[in-house]
Amino acid sequence: MSKKPVCLILGAGAGIGGHVGQKFAEQGYHTVLARRSDEEGLKKLVAQIHEIGGTGSGRLINAIDEGAIENLISDIEAHEGPIEVVVFNLGAQVGNQSLEETSYKTFELGWRMTSFALFRLAKTIAPIMEARGGGTILVTSATSALRGNAGQHSHAAAIGGRRMLCQSLNAELAAKGIHICHIYIDAAIEAPDTLGKLLGDELYQKLLAERAHGKDGMVIPKHVAETYYHIAHQHRSAWTFEIDIRPFSEKPWWNS
Amino acid sequence: MSKKPVCLILGAGAGIGGHVGQKFAEQGYHTVLARRSDEEGLKKLVAQIHEIGGTGSGRLINAIDEGAIENLISDIEAHEGPIEVVVFNLGAQVGNQSLEETSYKTFELGWRMTSFALFRLAKTIAPIMEARGGGTILVTSATSALRGNAGQHSHAAAIGGRRMLCQSLNAELAAKGIHICHIYIDAAIEAPDTLGKLLGDELYQKLLAERAHGKDGMVIPKHVAETYYHIAHQHRSAWTFEIDIRPFSEKPWWNS
Amino acid sequence: MSKKPVCLILGAGAGIGGHVGQKFAEQGYHTVLARRSDEEGLKKLVAQIHEIGGTGSGRLINAIDEGAIENLISDIEAHEGPIEVVVFNLGAQVGNQSLEETSYKTFELGWRMTSFALFRLAKTIAPIMEARGGGTILVTSATSALRGNAGQHSHAAAIGGRRMLCQSLNAELAAKGIHICHIYIDAAIEAPDTLGKLLGDELYQKLLAERAHGKDGMVIPKHVAETYYHIAHQHRSAWTFEIDIRPFSEKPWWNS
Amino acid sequence: MSKKPVCLILGAGAGIGGHVGQKFAEQGYHTVLARRSDEEGLKKLVAQIHEIGGTGSGRLINAIDEGAIENLISDIEAHEGPIEVVVFNLGAQVGNQSLEETSYKTFELGWRMTSFALFRLAKTIAPIMEARGGGTILVTSATSALRGNAGQHSHAAAIGGRRMLCQSLNAELAAKGIHICHIYIDAAIEAPDTLGKLLGDELYQKLLAERAHGKDGMVIPKHVAETYYHIAHQHRSAWTFEIDIRPFSEKPWWNS
Repeated sequence: MSKKPVCLILGAGAGIGGHVGQKFAEQGYHTVLARRSDEEGLKKLVAQIHEIGGTGSGRLINAIDEGAIENLISDIEAHEGPIEVVVFNLGAQVGNQSLEETSYKTFELGWRMTSFALFRLAKTIAPIMEARGGGTILVTSATSALRGNAGQHSHAAAIGGRRMLCQSLNAELAAKGIHICHIYIDAAIEAPDTLGKLLGDELYQKLLAERAHGKDGMVIPKHVAETYYHIAHQHRSAWTFEIDIRPFSEKPWWNS
Repeated sequence: MSKKPVCLILGAGAGIGGHVGQKFAEQGYHTVLARRSDEEGLKKLVAQIHEIGGTGSGRLINAIDEGAIENLISDIEAHEGPIEVVVFNLGAQVGNQSLEETSYKTFELGWRMTSFALFRLAKTIAPIMEARGGGTILVTSATSALRGNAGQHSHAAAIGGRRMLCQSLNAELAAKGIHICHIYIDAAIEAPDTLGKLLGDELYQKLLAERAHGKDGMVIPKHVAETYYHIAHQHRSAWTFEIDIRPFSEKPWWNS
Repeated sequence: MSKKPVCLILGAGAGIGGHVGQKFAEQGYHTVLARRSDEEGLKKLVAQIHEIGGTGSGRLINAIDEGAIENLISDIEAHEGPIEVVVFNLGAQVGNQSLEETSYKTFELGWRMTSFALFRLAKTIAPIMEARGGGTILVTSATSALRGNAGQHSHAAAIGGRRMLCQSLNAELAAKGIHICHIYIDAAIEAPDTLGKLLGDELYQKLLAERAHGKDGMVIPKHVAETYYHIAHQHRSAWTFEIDIRPFSEKPWWNS
Repeated sequence: MSKKPVCLILGAGAGIGGHVGQKFAEQGYHTVLARRSDEEGLKKLVAQIHEIGGTGSGRLINAIDEGAIENLISDIEAHEGPIEVVVFNLGAQVGNQSLEETSYKTFELGWRMTSFALFRLAKTIAPIMEARGGGTILVTSATSALRGNAGQHSHAAAIGGRRMLCQSLNAELAAKGIHICHIYIDAAIEAPDTLGKLLGDELYQKLLAERAHGKDGMVIPKHVAETYYHIAHQHRSAWTFEIDIRPFSEKPWWNS
């Protein structure tokens, strides 16, 4: 049982999830990294936390399994410490799929991974946080939460609904001390575990060559982590509910 | 088999669905009214269509049943006529429920009734409409599609996601001649079958006494039907994707 | 003095203004067409109204002149009839201008032509309409009212402010029976007097060749006029505050 | 001539402007505080900067005077140092005024103080910043930039237009290294120089008693200053264009 406050990262790959975890660990949080697969990768992320003198653990869970999120939370609360911050970093971006290509299964999975999973998380953690006087839930989101687009039938429906859920949760929970923030990344992210896998290695390396490597034309996760940490530590007289993130060189969604 | 174009109303109670059905029937559409329950009420609506010299039929279906929407469409196409207009009028407003009160089942049902049902409808009807050069899908929506609020966890997530789905569908289908319009009603509606049942008779009568009966302070379905009909008949050089509806005396959601 | 209700078009060229005027005249309104220049063009528009058996008049005014809008209204009220509908069709689109190219004068003129002119109109006509129990103000707007973009410094600031003014006016005036609707055209319009002049004849003809002439890829004013007329005649239990218009083949601003 | 980078605060009272100035001074910026009146108050703010070991100066200017902003910038650039950050903190909130109460003069002044003043600032400073490879412009805004409301005719038109201007500036300038952020405060602020004067002392003290003094129910400027500073120092791969600020206990504008 850690004496530190716990930061739980749901969806901790080598992109935003992992880097936000590092940042919180570095700042004194006991950080629990949860992800669906790649035990090797997960161990590496936990090892990095230990290397900088932090504490934390890794969990392999499939968030859409019945009880998975619920049990994870009670287990952490029982054995690791009180969860003060949750970074909800699950997404279900499947790339561009036409209506014909998008199966019922994909559409349902998108909803289960993002909207329903956040609802389950909130149902489970909100009473615990409320009893302790507060807590923080940071939700990583994307442009499709703000506007649907061709090929985004499943993704936009899932995370657009989740954004409205965040507003509903905020309307009930903020005054009880629970800070919810919808952080939407409006650009490609340097994230080998998500964008890298979505595009395939060749395309991903091409994208990096064009925009990354000193050009700062893709979102760099370690820098975004600074903003996550800042938001989680805003004074309660000055909370933010929504914030957009994109590279300087990227057009915002409303212009592109 | 009707020689008329078909207008299908999914969710045809004695409110917007029923009145929009009447309007289209009156204007020469063969109108199919589908709803989940109340065979008596459904027969009455169909009878009203016949009384004004229109043609149409009634169907009792539970839209969330597997295959229900898909079979309905193929059946109508096979036996009644080509569906030119669909009015998607299904909702899952459950009144105000706190996070604690909102069950997983309610949350899932909300999504199945609104977001997933529209997706299933679109997957089924879009290729048919596209092959015929076009069609119209009008989606009845509500304020919670635009902003979440306390007690709206399930409803806002469901219809907020559906709004983003409408934008995604529009991005793919508009140029193929399929007109999608998200019509959101930003006020209480004179609708005994939905609001009436949600509030219970006493509260509903009280509301009517305060705002209806000549005061026009609640949305009157037969008048909204005029706007549905207008939207469905806009020239393709001047289509509308989104429109709000409220009584003159009601504050818009952004002011209240 | 006409016994008909008056429809005043502020900004009546051979595009939306002129065609909306025709529509209202055809439906029995005494229609006053006001524009800044081109007496010849104005006479032609008035003649077209007379040809279809309508009544109306033309006024050459520069709306930004001190007192011009105010005097126009009192003059019409005194000599032509009670103004029931105003179509506020003034714009100040100056094409794409970088920050460097946009002069203080242009920026101020943009504001005077759109935001301040509507404010002056509203101050003048609202008390008159209110005393008569109601009226309608339809404001033609454009995409830049919803999002700023490169080269739109002046235009977006002017009409973005005007949109917020429309919401403020609506918040005060709707319950008094004054229907305000912000109609934004999210595409190029077949309008020789505005887009034609902005682009120059060669480019405008090229655009027409690509998108108009049976392709319906530009907004056709006479079809938009139907929607203006519909909005102005919505029952007060079912008013619309905002509506978007674009051709079927055009991507909405949130997708392009 | 300071060797430090300069942070210019336009609109530096004892609220957000003053506290943001303190924060930047504390972090090593030479801070120039500009305001319209109250030389005494201005001296006090500059003295506070010196007390914490910072450097800075105070300027009394009326931003709407011809050339005032332009001359201020060239004077600072010539005599104090290179302006790296501008905090544009001018507002023109005049309290609730009905349409009848709002004079043409008030409406014009609102525009001059907020929208036009930012345009003049941007025209003047953007080329200088661009030549140096970048800079930051943080714009303090308010709820009326997002939605108009009763009594906000002047204020909403002015700052709603300014928000669209910010988007237009961002579309042109971000890729040139100039970070623009629209920070909107969606609640009452503990600011004796603005809200205090607007409400009068009695009402303001009443509001403080109800919501401030340990309740954190009003925005506390020194805490907001942390977020301004954070935004100004985001890595260019992860910039924010818009952020909302309100106390935990306050309903967002979309819910109230």
